[in-house]
Amino acid sequence: MIKVVLLGTGNVATHLLDAFLEHTDIALVQVVGRNKKALAAFAPSVNTTTSYARIMEANVYLIAVSDDAIAEVAKNLSTKKGLVVHTSGAVALNALEYNERRGVFYPLQTFSKGQRPNFKTIPICIEAGNENDLHILTELASKISDNVVHISSKQRGVLHISAVFVNNFTNHCYQLGKEICDENGLPFELLKPLIMETAKKIQTLQPFEAQTGPAVRKDKKTLEKHNKQLKDETHREVYALMSKSIEKSHGEKL
Amino acid sequence: MIKVVLLGTGNVATHLLDAFLEHTDIALVQVVGRNKKALAAFAPSVNTTTSYARIMEANVYLIAVSDDAIAEVAKNLSTKKGLVVHTSGAVALNALEYNERRGVFYPLQTFSKGQRPNFKTIPICIEAGNENDLHILTELASKISDNVVHISSKQRGVLHISAVFVNNFTNHCYQLGKEICDENGLPFELLKPLIMETAKKIQTLQPFEAQTGPAVRKDKKTLEKHNKQLKDETHREVYALMSKSIEKSHGEKL
Repeated sequence: MIKVVLLGTGNVATHLLDAFLEHTDIALVQVVGRNKKALAAFAPSVNTTTSYARIMEANVYLIAVSDDAIAEVAKNLSTKKGLVVHTSGAVALNALEYNERRGVFYPLQTFSKGQRPNFKTIPICIEAGNENDLHILTELASKISDNVVHISSKQRGVLHISAVFVNNFTNHCYQLGKEICDENGLPFELLKPLIMETAKKIQTLQPFEAQTGPAVRKDKKTLEKHNKQLKDETHREVYALMSKSIEKSHGEKL
Repeated sequence: MIKVVLLGTGNVATHLLDAFLEHTDIALVQVVGRNKKALAAFAPSVNTTTSYARIMEANVYLIAVSDDAIAEVAKNLSTKKGLVVHTSGAVALNALEYNERRGVFYPLQTFSKGQRPNFKTIPICIEAGNENDLHILTELASKISDNVVHISSKQRGVLHISAVFVNNFTNHCYQLGKEICDENGLPFELLKPLIMETAKKIQTLQPFEAQTGPAVRKDKKTLEKHNKQLKDETHREVYALMSKSIEKSHGEKL
């Protein structure tokens, strides 16, 4: 039985709580948060507190707060004997410098309010200050996911940048598509099946093989026509640079 | 009963054939193609020919060839009494200038070999030279899809640009994420659940609401750190421009 205290009340904390509560061999003993209102949502399932002085004993303290707040929260756990762990893709293990036992437990996924993820398929990237603690985190992560990987702080930093491209920038491509539809009174809904299929394709094909469109075909006529049709300067800049980058990725390997 | 002749042997033609064959009130009378090898794959299900002189009579001639070849194929159908229709997002109705009865039947989806799409949910954007022909295309499209929309050539051009953003550029974001993983010896597989979830999110949330990451948080520290970590100049350019564009989309509306 692993005793866990969860620090934070946001999306990551909420979804981790749900995942942990499903497993009888994980004892989620407490949720700690500053925001009383947010904390109230956890109160029916678990002991809660707003006070660092009242934090209970646990094997693992899981910090699921914004990147900027991690170091401060961790400092308040410096006297704890348990393993102190954060859940961020972008923050190094060393950020937990005041904690004798430290680790990282990073679920590589985007979490939204109200949309319950399937943790079994989510990669959980773990790291720890020593072998024994790495073993504890492997055990904890394996209870909720079938996809547990040991990743160093440096590798996690790289994964986080890749995630910015495939998640943040992809979502922004959807946004730009929507802006172009809106400007022309067309329903963005029409593009939703295409968006789903584009993501599905990549589950079996390499992005290189799946690439289609005027840039990879080097179809100058269409590229010029689109450039003339785009009214917004930033839209035109993105169109030109992404097309150039597609040509570069494909030019080198053809 | 609508009699259809299909011209072309690529992905779109193949998937349309499958969809049409499922409906007993569509008579797919023939597939026409120059490529004998590709045509052979159609021969077990339908009459085929490589010769324009042997094209059979039909209500609708559906041209599913590359954009550049549409005008030439259509010219060969100039003596036909049936309705001549292309399936392209990028080509105007007027490209069929030698055909008395003309139209467009554009399934807004990305088609891959071997991956059978669910046509019921695919938007089919139709257009025709007159009301009667529009009615025929509506009838034909409605047999295979629940999502039939009347879209002018101008609107279709805009939709096609939006599709470049949400499909081609999105797939390129996956490619860039993979390049960054490859450079650092990390498996791209780790990002696949994130990619699926990013697309799923947009089925219920607006892209504006779904946007996360350092650019929308105006987290300068992370933006600078990522800029330093990216080794490839084009990766850095894309990172900078997409971040600027995210800030613009969100700055204006906040």
